[in-house]
Amino acid sequence: MTGKKKSAQASVEAMYRVFTVPEAPESTLSRIDQNISRNLAGFLQEHIVAVERDLSDVEKNFADSVIPEKPVFVSEQAQFLLDKLVANSVHTASPAFIGHMTSALPYFMLPLSKIMIALNQNLVKTETSKAFTPLERQVLGMIHRLVYQQDGSFYRKWMHDPRHALGAMCSGGTVANLTALWVARNRAFPAEGSFRGLHEEGLFRALRYYGCEGAAIVVSKRGHYSLRKAADVLGLGRDALVPVETDEFNRIQPDALRDKCLELQKQKIKVMAICGVAGTTETGNVDPLDAMADIAREFGAHFHVDAAWGGPTLFSRTHKHLLRGIEKADSVTFDAHKQLYVPMGAGLVVFKDPSLASAVEHHAQYIIRKGSRDLGSTTLEGSRPGMAMLIHSGLKILAREGYEILIDQGIDKAKTFANMIDEQPDFELVTRPELNILTYRYCPEDVRQALAMADELQAEKMNTCLNRITKFIQKTQRERGKAFVSRTRLEPARYYHFPCIVFRVVLANPLTTPDILEDILREQRELSKEDGIADEIAILHQMAAAVLKQDQKQARQA
Amino acid sequence: MTGKKKSAQASVEAMYRVFTVPEAPESTLSRIDQNISRNLAGFLQEHIVAVERDLSDVEKNFADSVIPEKPVFVSEQAQFLLDKLVANSVHTASPAFIGHMTSALPYFMLPLSKIMIALNQNLVKTETSKAFTPLERQVLGMIHRLVYQQDGSFYRKWMHDPRHALGAMCSGGTVANLTALWVARNRAFPAEGSFRGLHEEGLFRALRYYGCEGAAIVVSKRGHYSLRKAADVLGLGRDALVPVETDEFNRIQPDALRDKCLELQKQKIKVMAICGVAGTTETGNVDPLDAMADIAREFGAHFHVDAAWGGPTLFSRTHKHLLRGIEKADSVTFDAHKQLYVPMGAGLVVFKDPSLASAVEHHAQYIIRKGSRDLGSTTLEGSRPGMAMLIHSGLKILAREGYEILIDQGIDKAKTFANMIDEQPDFELVTRPELNILTYRYCPEDVRQALAMADELQAEKMNTCLNRITKFIQKTQRERGKAFVSRTRLEPARYYHFPCIVFRVVLANPLTTPDILEDILREQRELSKEDGIADEIAILHQMAAAVLKQDQKQARQA
Repeated sequence: MTGKKKSAQASVEAMYRVFTVPEAPESTLSRIDQNISRNLAGFLQEHIVAVERDLSDVEKNFADSVIPEKPVFVSEQAQFLLDKLVANSVHTASPAFIGHMTSALPYFMLPLSKIMIALNQNLVKTETSKAFTPLERQVLGMIHRLVYQQDGSFYRKWMHDPRHALGAMCSGGTVANLTALWVARNRAFPAEGSFRGLHEEGLFRALRYYGCEGAAIVVSKRGHYSLRKAADVLGLGRDALVPVETDEFNRIQPDALRDKCLELQKQKIKVMAICGVAGTTETGNVDPLDAMADIAREFGAHFHVDAAWGGPTLFSRTHKHLLRGIEKADSVTFDAHKQLYVPMGAGLVVFKDPSLASAVEHHAQYIIRKGSRDLGSTTLEGSRPGMAMLIHSGLKILAREGYEILIDQGIDKAKTFANMIDEQPDFELVTRPELNILTYRYCPEDVRQALAMADELQAEKMNTCLNRITKFIQKTQRERGKAFVSRTRLEPARYYHFPCIVFRVVLANPLTTPDILEDILREQRELSKEDGIADEIAILHQMAAAVLKQDQKQARQA
Repeated sequence: MTGKKKSAQASVEAMYRVFTVPEAPESTLSRIDQNISRNLAGFLQEHIVAVERDLSDVEKNFADSVIPEKPVFVSEQAQFLLDKLVANSVHTASPAFIGHMTSALPYFMLPLSKIMIALNQNLVKTETSKAFTPLERQVLGMIHRLVYQQDGSFYRKWMHDPRHALGAMCSGGTVANLTALWVARNRAFPAEGSFRGLHEEGLFRALRYYGCEGAAIVVSKRGHYSLRKAADVLGLGRDALVPVETDEFNRIQPDALRDKCLELQKQKIKVMAICGVAGTTETGNVDPLDAMADIAREFGAHFHVDAAWGGPTLFSRTHKHLLRGIEKADSVTFDAHKQLYVPMGAGLVVFKDPSLASAVEHHAQYIIRKGSRDLGSTTLEGSRPGMAMLIHSGLKILAREGYEILIDQGIDKAKTFANMIDEQPDFELVTRPELNILTYRYCPEDVRQALAMADELQAEKMNTCLNRITKFIQKTQRERGKAFVSRTRLEPARYYHFPCIVFRVVLANPLTTPDILEDILREQRELSKEDGIADEIAILHQMAAAVLKQDQKQARQA
């Protein structure tokens, strides 16, 4: 062999080894693997750096745009990932990180995920997933039953019926909502007479055939942004996502919903879907689903419920009444990577009527042939991993009782935290928790008194100032790395609907304790005294003093 | 404490343990975990049952539609999964399973996946992903550079620019194609004068404003079915996916493409996108991308290339010329879970122009705010896992050289197999491999001779018979569990475009050897002699004999 041939042969053999020889037990990667198995919390605690580095600084480690010519050792890449990626990732499992919807995972999810990845099944068809297909159908059936409570014979008939699907597994809630609205859109403009249906002829001809000027999706203004995205993707345009006013508890006003639908009808705009929200992203409130279902029926609209967050509330005997009416929905979105405590990348939608999914059925010669059991015929995605296995395991190992405890504890904890905030003179609870989400802000006592009597202009000025303070505290707390709350913008009626920035808290991590919550408030109070925000705070107190003084003057005059 | 309270307390504590205490090293799940780490191939070999069980039988293990009330032990669920799920899953990594696009994974992908899942980041925003965001941007940049070969300054400028994205990570190729066509559709009908753009006002008003009767996506008739699905989702209707004839090598005919575009133009249908295929799913052929790019420019159409399968051919100095012209595409789909050897659930699309993605940009108050680096503003999906970490690791550890070896070996192996088939008297190569995919069928020598001289009706009869035989062999071989080829339907010109069922083979698993390929042919030949198909085979030979006899007679008469 020539030198060149020998080196080529060596490269081929090295490549072969990568596919056949496991990492040595003492290799960097094996040690990480074992560490994670033995002590995940310790691994995360040890390797994630608490203090936040600026992203533009982190970017320096990911600056090269050229794919390297020569391989690096696995150990080298493992060390790089530990030092540069893991170190600067987010400790989503930390009990003090209560700002997002990602929480700690049950331990068993990790080795189970490994089995899932080792098997590397593709759920688009049975040929590459075999038993995973009935398993996924079972998971869809179980969630369907949780929502719709049909009897055993219903599921014996439909759950494994190859020509039907009780739902569609998705990578997340956005695709689940999109899938539901895709079904709704196609069903709103079905084949009739010479028209072969929207799915074949498209939206333009559909509206022309049916004599409509447009098609709308109506939802409370607290609906998730994925619905607006869906309106865009589906060709309806973002204008087609019609927001409806909410009451002071961030729930849609049924009268306003009805009026909006009547108005659309007058404009010859087809109300294609009405969406209820079961757990708004920002405040965790639940729309009056039962009343909405009736309005949807009145207008012949598809009734979809986005229960990506709040769906698992159905596990709780104490709180499931909040979702009354969900069983009337034509479709319901559920996110498994949220309150089913499954790793990222698992959402699903269930359909009340097993024939609904046929509105989006697709076939091909080489895959998902007609009559096959292939799940891919009614999913938006094609190739998909076997995440259903993790949902299945959660439902078996935690069971209804386990999920009930998680839900109940989260809601209790949110109420405890709300009471804690109420007791602080310098914090203001902005939205009281219905589920396990609440919002609040730092707001000194004098400012709260002043706000209570301020006119619109005065309130606007003080709230603008408070917004800067809230943003400062939230960002600085995140950067310091001990705790994390997120922030959003609400328009409270009591402040003349002026956009107020608030802290947003999601209490889904079972490891979050009241002590941790107290520490978070304490740190926020301390941050409010920092130099970086001193000027704002001083101005705020001056404004409050002016309002209070004016009020005393008016009181004296009166 | 009362008994009830005690038991409630115990349940809460059990729940707490699930989140804090790792599985014991001797537990069922830990043993599986260790087995997989030590010897994945052995684990799969040992636990996956070779002989296929009927799916309706497997379904019995997944029949219960009620979520259990009481928790089961982790060990019990682990054992259940081993016995009922893993045992009846598909050995996608087997070197004799050459029927699908899922192959063996490099060993390091397993422990790396565990890190990814342990970190449980959410790539929708930096707040829940931090360093994962620049890492994902780097991966998009690297694939962008592989495709478009811009210089270093281009990537320094754009790769980490928060207001731009060089692409979008997706769960797979279907979403990648959909994302590209979503961009194309929105850009085809932009804001102008009083019209605020399709993304705002929708397709109906867009077509009305621009005076069009429709919008079309033009692609070869070998395009992936996800494109038709995308046409449906996007509101264009499936009719809008306009197929163009291919040549005998399953590549689009540029003249036919141009004619089709002219015809659409005459009908006032906007050619919104032209899609090239770089690696057709069924035959692995590559469209003449360079010529297509010119036609796309001529019609002002977005040029998209679906390189979900063939994209990594760009790593090969020997074969990358096949994709010449891909650098002219406005967008390119790449599947990482195919020939980048990453676990299921990783696709992406790259955009030539960094501003293209802005056509689908979405923002919200609580997430992906304007000006943030959040990747979620231009992805179709919302919450997403950190799969980019695995792609990054593949690109570093295998490097360009490693992927080149994999690509070159796959194509060489396909040529070897094609030659092997050519040499068999009783097999017919239906499509010769251009990349690493080929199709063939069992077809005895006399039948091949007869087919060569048959008229249309005779050919149809023999091919109908052959179709049944091919289907029988493919299904039976799959059921026996030693090997797996898939099947599809092609319309070869030489058989008067009659739909012929063929075996489809994908040679991407580096562990597949020529010996294995020989065994596969041998088993198929043996299956052709089985009782189950004997009648068909007998009829086939009779038909062939009749054709040959008639031919001899005609020869004598002449």
